[in-house]
Amino acid sequence: MSVKEAGQNQTFEQNERLRELYAAISNGANSFLFSEYKLCTVFVVFLAGVIVGLVSWSSGRETAIFTATSFVVGALTSMLSGYIGMRVAVFSNARCTVGAVKPAPHGWTESFNTAFRAGGVMGFSLCGLALLCLYALVVFLAPSFSWGTTAGAMKLFDCIAGFGLGGSAVAMFGRVGGGIYTKAADVGADLAGKVVEDLPEDDPHNPGTLADSCPVGTIADNVGDNVGDVAGMGSDLFGSFGEASCAAMLVGASSPGLVAAGWAALMFPLTISGAGIVVCLVTSFFATNFCPARARARAHIEGALKLQLFVSALLMTPVVWWLSSSFLPTSFAVSGACATPTGAFACVAFGLWGGCAIGFITEYYTSFSYRPVVEVSESCRTGAATNIIFGLALGYKSVVLPVFILAGIIFGSHRLAGMYGISLAALGMLATLATCLTIDDADSAAFVRPVCDNAGGIAEMCELHPSVREKTDALDAAGNTTAAIGKGFAIGSACLVGVALFGAFVTRLNDTGAKVTVDLLDPLTFAGLLVGSMLPYWFSAMTMKSVGKAANEMVIEIKRQFDANPNLLIPNHPDRPDYDRRGRYRGDIGEMSRPIGALVMFAPIVAGVVFGTKSVTGLLAGGIASGVQMAVSASNTGGAWDNAKKYIGKGGLNDLIARVEPDVVNELGDVKQKKSQIYKAAVTGDTVGDPLKDTSGPALNILMKLMAIISVVFADVFLAVNKGDGLIASWL
Amino acid sequence: MSVKEAGQNQTFEQNERLRELYAAISNGANSFLFSEYKLCTVFVVFLAGVIVGLVSWSSGRETAIFTATSFVVGALTSMLSGYIGMRVAVFSNARCTVGAVKPAPHGWTESFNTAFRAGGVMGFSLCGLALLCLYALVVFLAPSFSWGTTAGAMKLFDCIAGFGLGGSAVAMFGRVGGGIYTKAADVGADLAGKVVEDLPEDDPHNPGTLADSCPVGTIADNVGDNVGDVAGMGSDLFGSFGEASCAAMLVGASSPGLVAAGWAALMFPLTISGAGIVVCLVTSFFATNFCPARARARAHIEGALKLQLFVSALLMTPVVWWLSSSFLPTSFAVSGACATPTGAFACVAFGLWGGCAIGFITEYYTSFSYRPVVEVSESCRTGAATNIIFGLALGYKSVVLPVFILAGIIFGSHRLAGMYGISLAALGMLATLATCLTIDDADSAAFVRPVCDNAGGIAEMCELHPSVREKTDALDAAGNTTAAIGKGFAIGSACLVGVALFGAFVTRLNDTGAKVTVDLLDPLTFAGLLVGSMLPYWFSAMTMKSVGKAANEMVIEIKRQFDANPNLLIPNHPDRPDYDRRGRYRGDIGEMSRPIGALVMFAPIVAGVVFGTKSVTGLLAGGIASGVQMAVSASNTGGAWDNAKKYIGKGGLNDLIARVEPDVVNELGDVKQKKSQIYKAAVTGDTVGDPLKDTSGPALNILMKLMAIISVVFADVFLAVNKGDGLIASWL
Repeated sequence: MSVKEAGQNQTFEQNERLRELYAAISNGANSFLFSEYKLCTVFVVFLAGVIVGLVSWSSGRETAIFTATSFVVGALTSMLSGYIGMRVAVFSNARCTVGAVKPAPHGWTESFNTAFRAGGVMGFSLCGLALLCLYALVVFLAPSFSWGTTAGAMKLFDCIAGFGLGGSAVAMFGRVGGGIYTKAADVGADLAGKVVEDLPEDDPHNPGTLADSCPVGTIADNVGDNVGDVAGMGSDLFGSFGEASCAAMLVGASSPGLVAAGWAALMFPLTISGAGIVVCLVTSFFATNFCPARARARAHIEGALKLQLFVSALLMTPVVWWLSSSFLPTSFAVSGACATPTGAFACVAFGLWGGCAIGFITEYYTSFSYRPVVEVSESCRTGAATNIIFGLALGYKSVVLPVFILAGIIFGSHRLAGMYGISLAALGMLATLATCLTIDDADSAAFVRPVCDNAGGIAEMCELHPSVREKTDALDAAGNTTAAIGKGFAIGSACLVGVALFGAFVTRLNDTGAKVTVDLLDPLTFAGLLVGSMLPYWFSAMTMKSVGKAANEMVIEIKRQFDANPNLLIPNHPDRPDYDRRGRYRGDIGEMSRPIGALVMFAPIVAGVVFGTKSVTGLLAGGIASGVQMAVSASNTGGAWDNAKKYIGKGGLNDLIARVEPDVVNELGDVKQKKSQIYKAAVTGDTVGDPLKDTSGPALNILMKLMAIISVVFADVFLAVNKGDGLIASWL
Repeated sequence: MSVKEAGQNQTFEQNERLRELYAAISNGANSFLFSEYKLCTVFVVFLAGVIVGLVSWSSGRETAIFTATSFVVGALTSMLSGYIGMRVAVFSNARCTVGAVKPAPHGWTESFNTAFRAGGVMGFSLCGLALLCLYALVVFLAPSFSWGTTAGAMKLFDCIAGFGLGGSAVAMFGRVGGGIYTKAADVGADLAGKVVEDLPEDDPHNPGTLADSCPVGTIADNVGDNVGDVAGMGSDLFGSFGEASCAAMLVGASSPGLVAAGWAALMFPLTISGAGIVVCLVTSFFATNFCPARARARAHIEGALKLQLFVSALLMTPVVWWLSSSFLPTSFAVSGACATPTGAFACVAFGLWGGCAIGFITEYYTSFSYRPVVEVSESCRTGAATNIIFGLALGYKSVVLPVFILAGIIFGSHRLAGMYGISLAALGMLATLATCLTIDDADSAAFVRPVCDNAGGIAEMCELHPSVREKTDALDAAGNTTAAIGKGFAIGSACLVGVALFGAFVTRLNDTGAKVTVDLLDPLTFAGLLVGSMLPYWFSAMTMKSVGKAANEMVIEIKRQFDANPNLLIPNHPDRPDYDRRGRYRGDIGEMSRPIGALVMFAPIVAGVVFGTKSVTGLLAGGIASGVQMAVSASNTGGAWDNAKKYIGKGGLNDLIARVEPDVVNELGDVKQKKSQIYKAAVTGDTVGDPLKDTSGPALNILMKLMAIISVVFADVFLAVNKGDGLIASWL
C-alpha cells in the first residue's frame, strides 16, 4: 500500500532533516522578529516622546500622558500578538507535515486540523488579546474623565485613539519590514538560479533546478512568510480592529443620546467584536469536528474553509441584531443623522456581508478555478510580456466591483447613522476577523511543504513520500485561495476604517468649535487631495524598490556562499549553507523601512501643521480613495500571477504545451510542463507579483489607516496652530 | 568617401522600395483613419442627438441647438486636424529619409529641418485651426445672446462648451482606437517571432531576426504610430486647448467685472493661445535657421529641440504680461477671488513654467542620460522580472514631483484668481502647444528609419548606407526624449484643464441658484470620489486588455500569412505580404473602443441623473486625482522601459554583458548586445510598456477632461432632475 509506505519511508534521517529545517526557520524567524522589534521599540519611544511633547503643548500634560500610555499599550499588544502568531505558525509548520505523513483518511484530517487549529490559536488569541487590552485600557482611564458628558467622553476616547495608533504603527513595521524581507527572499530565490548559472562549475542548461535547490533563499523565504505574512497580517488586522473600535467610540461619544444611555451604549462597538470571537469559536467546530476534511480534493478543503466564513457571517447576523436592540437607545442623534438600533444593525450587517462579497470577488479574480486566472495563464503562450499585460489588466479590473460595494456601504451606513454608521460597518467587516485569521493562517501552516520540496533538490534526505506532498500541496493551494479572501477583507476593512477615522477626525475638529468643512472647492483641500492620491504611489515606489534591492543583495549573498564553498552544490554533501548570514542585511531592511515609515507618519503632521486642517482632510480623502484602488489591484494582480503559475504547474495547460512545445513531452507522452517556455513566462509574472501582492498591496492598507489615526491623535495640535489654518496662514 | 557613397548607393531600386513602403504606410494610415472616422461620425451624430434631446428638455430648444452646433464644429475641427497631422507625418517620413541621404553637414541639417518643419506644419496648422474655429464660433453665436450681462455671457459660453466636448470626444476615439491599433501592431510585431518560431520551416534558434523581419507587423506599427501618436496626440492637445478656453471663458463670464469690461476682456483666454502661436513661430526660426543641427550627436539635436521649448516659454512670459495688462480691467471679482492683471499674468506664468518643469522631470525619469533609466537597464541583469519591478517603481516615483508642482499651481492660481486662475494656468501650459507638437512630431517624422531598418531584414533592396541610418537614428532617439516632454505637458495640462472644468461645472451649478457645496462629508460625494478614483483603473483595464487581444489577433494573422505563403520568409523574394489584411480586425478595434468610450461618456451622465450633482462632483474630483497619477506613472514607466532597451541596444551595458555573458562576444571582442539575455529582458519590459505609455496613459488624459466637460455640458440636465438631487431623491 502506497499509503503505508508513506509512513514507513519517513526514516530517522528524514525526521532529523525536518527537525533541522524547523530549527533553521524558527531561529531565523525569531532573530528577524527580534531585530525588527528592536527597531520598533526605538521608534515607539520616539513617537511617544513626540506625542507627549506636541499634545501636552496643545491639550495639556494629562491628555498627553494618557494618549502616550494608550499608544504604548497598543504598540506592545501588537508586538505581542505578532510574536504569538509567528511562534504558532512556525511550530505548526513541522507538525502539519508530520500529520500529513499518517495514512489517509486520518492523515488528511490530522494535517488539515493541525493547520486549522494553529490558525485558530492565532486568530482567537489575537482577537481576544486585542479586545481585552483595549477594554482594560478604557476601564483604567475612564475614572479620570467625566465620561457621563459628551465633552468628557470625547476626551476619554480621544486619548484611547492612541491605542489604535500604537497598533497600526507596529503593524506598519511588520508589514513593510516583514514584507520587504519575505519578498526579497522570495524574489532572491527565484533569481538565484540566473546568477548562479554564470558560475563556471554550473550546468548552464538547467538553471531551474539550481533556483529550486537554493537553501539560503528558501529558508529565508519561509522565515519571511512567517514574519511577513503571519505576524504582519496579524498586526495589520489587529490595527484595523483597534482603530475601528476607537473611531466608533470616539464618534459615539459625540452623540448626547448615546452618552446619556450610559456605559453599555458607549461600549456597543466592543460588544460586536466580542460576540464575533464567540461566534467564530462556535463556527470553528464545524470545520474540525462536524465537517472534517477527508477527501483529497483541493476543492473540498477550500470549500471547508469558505464554509467557515459563510457560517460565521450567518451566525453573526442575528447576534448583532440582538446586541444592537439590547445595548442601544431606541433613537439617538449622531453626527448629523438620527440613528436607531435597526439602523445600527443594518450598518454592521452591511460590513459583515459586504466583506464576504469582497472576499469572494477577490477569490473569483485570483483563483484558477475561474476564467480570469485561466485567461492570464493562457496569455503566457506568447511570453512573459503578455502575461504581465493581462495580469495588470486583471488587477485593474478587479477593483471595479469591490469599490462599488464599498461606495454602497459608505453611502448606506452614512445615511442610517452618519459617520458612526461607517465605523460600525468597519467593525462588522472585522467581526469575522478570527475566522479570517484562522483560514489565512491555515495557509501559512502548510509552509513546510515548499521547504522540503526545495531543500529536497539538494539533499534527498528529507524527501517525503509523494502522498505526503499531495496533502500539503492541496492544503497550500486551498490556503492560497483563502489567503486571497483574507486579503480582500483586510483591504475592504482598511478602507472603511480609514473613512471612519476620517469621520472621527472631522468630528474631533467640529467638536472643538472650529468650523470645518471639507470643501473640495478650497484650493488647499483640492491640492491635499491631489497630493494624498499621490502618496500611495510614492509609498509603493519605495517598497517595491526596497524589495528589488534587497533581493539583489540576497542573490549576491547566495553567490558568495556558493563561491566560498562549492560543496553546497553537491547533492547529499553534508555541508550546510550559513542560513543566518541574512542577518547581515537585516539591518538594511530596517534602514529601508525607516523613510517609508517616516513618509506615512509625517505626511499628515507636516500637512496639518504647515498647511492646516483643510489640507489634511484633502490628504486623507485622496490617500484613502487612491490607496484602496492600488491595494486591491496590486494584491489581485500578484495573486492572479501566482495562481496562473500554479495552474500551469499542476498541468492545466498541458494540452497547449504539448501542441506548442513538443520537446518537453517525453517518450511516454508525459508533459514536463515546468520545463516549458510557457511556465517560465508564468514564473516571471509570479516574481513581479510577489512584491506587489505581499509588500506594496498590504502595506497600503496600513498607509490608509495610519495616516487617518495620526490625524485624529494630532487633531488638537493642528488646531493649535493658527486655529487650524496652519503656519501658512501667517505667511500669506 | 563614405559620405559620397551614401548618396551613390541609393540606387533606383532602393528608391522604388522606399516608394513602395511609403505607399503601404500611407494607404494603411488613410484607410485606418477613415474607418475610425466613420465610427466617430456615427458616434458624433448619436451624441448630438442626445445633446439636443436632453438639453432642450432642461434648457430650451435654442440652447440645445447652439450647444449641438458647437459640438459638431468641435468634432469636425478635431477630425480635420487629426487628418492634416497624419498626412503631414506620413509625407514627411519619406522626405526625412531622403534628406538624410545627402552628404553631411547638409544631410544633417536637411533631415533635421524636414522633420522639424513637418512638425511645425502640424503644430501651427492645428493650433491655428483650433483658434480660428473657436473664435468664429463665438463670433457667430454671440449676436443671439445678450453677452453684455453675466447671465447672457454665461449662456453663450455654456453653448460654446460643446466645442470642447466635440474636440475631446473625437480625441478619445483617436487616442483609444489609434492607441490600441498602434500598440497591438507594436506588441504583435514583438511577439510574432515567438509564434512564427513554432512553424516547422523556421529556424528556432534565431527568433529575433524573424520578429524584426515581419513586415505586416512593422508596417502596421508605423501606420499605428502615424494615426495613434500623431493624430491622437494632435487631437488630444487640441481638445485640451478647446476645453481650457471654454472653461476660462465660462468662468470669466460669471465675473461681472470682466463682462462689464467688454468683449476684449472676455476674449483674453483666446489671446493667450493666439500669442502662443506667434511666439512659437518666431522660436521655430531658431531651430531651423539660426541654430541648425549640424553635429551628429544625439545630444545636439536633443538640445536643439529642448532649447525651443525653453525659448518659447521665455519669449512668452513678457507677452503674457503685456496681454494681461492691456486686456483685463485693473481689478475684477471672479469666483470668490479678487483678481488683478498681475495675478492673471502670474497664473498663466505658473502654467507656462510649471509645464516646462514637468516636462523636464519627465525627461529625467525617461531618458537614459540620467540615473533612473540606467538603473532600470542594469536591473535587467537579473532578468525580466526585476526589470518590471524596477520599472514600475520608477513610474510610481516619477509621480511625486509633478503632482507637487500641479498642487502648487492649483493652490497658487486659485488664490490669485479663483477657478478662473486655474483655467488660465491650463492655458499657460498649453501656450507653447505649437512648439510641443512640433518637437513631438519631429520624432514621428523620423519613422521611416525603423521601416527601412526592419524591412531590410527581408529585402536588402532598401537598405541604405549606415551614415543615413546614423542620422535618422539620432533623430529618433532625440525625438523619443522630446516626445516624453510632450507627454509630460499633455498630462499636466489635462489635469489642470480637468480641475478648471470642475470649477466651471461648479460655477455653472452655483449660477443657476442651486446651492452647491462639494462637501466630502456628504456620503454621496465621498462615494463618488471613491468610484471616480476607480474609473481610471477600469478604463486602463479595458484599454490594456484590448491591446493584448488585438496583438494576439495580429500575431495569428501574421502566422496565417506565413503559413499561406512561405515565400514571405525568403530574403529577396518578390512576394509581398498582404499589408491590408489588418483591415479585418480594424472593425474589432472599433468594437473594443465602444465600451471604453461609453464608460467615460456615460459615467458622469448616469451619476448626475441618478445620484445628483453631489455625486458628480465627487466623481470628477476622484477621476482627476487618481487619473493624473496613473497617467504619469503609466507613461513614464513605459518610456523608461523603452529607453532602457535603447540604452542596452546602443551598447550602454556592454562591459557588464561581456563579463556576464561571454558567449555573445565574438572573436574580435565586439559585444553583440542584442543577442544577450540582458537585452531580451529589456525587450520584455518594452513590450509591457507599450500599451502603458501609448494606450492607457495618454487615454487617461482624455478621461479626465472628457468626464469634466460632459458634466459642464449636461449641468442643466442634472439640475432639472429633482433640483440636482437626482432620481435617488425620489426613492429615498
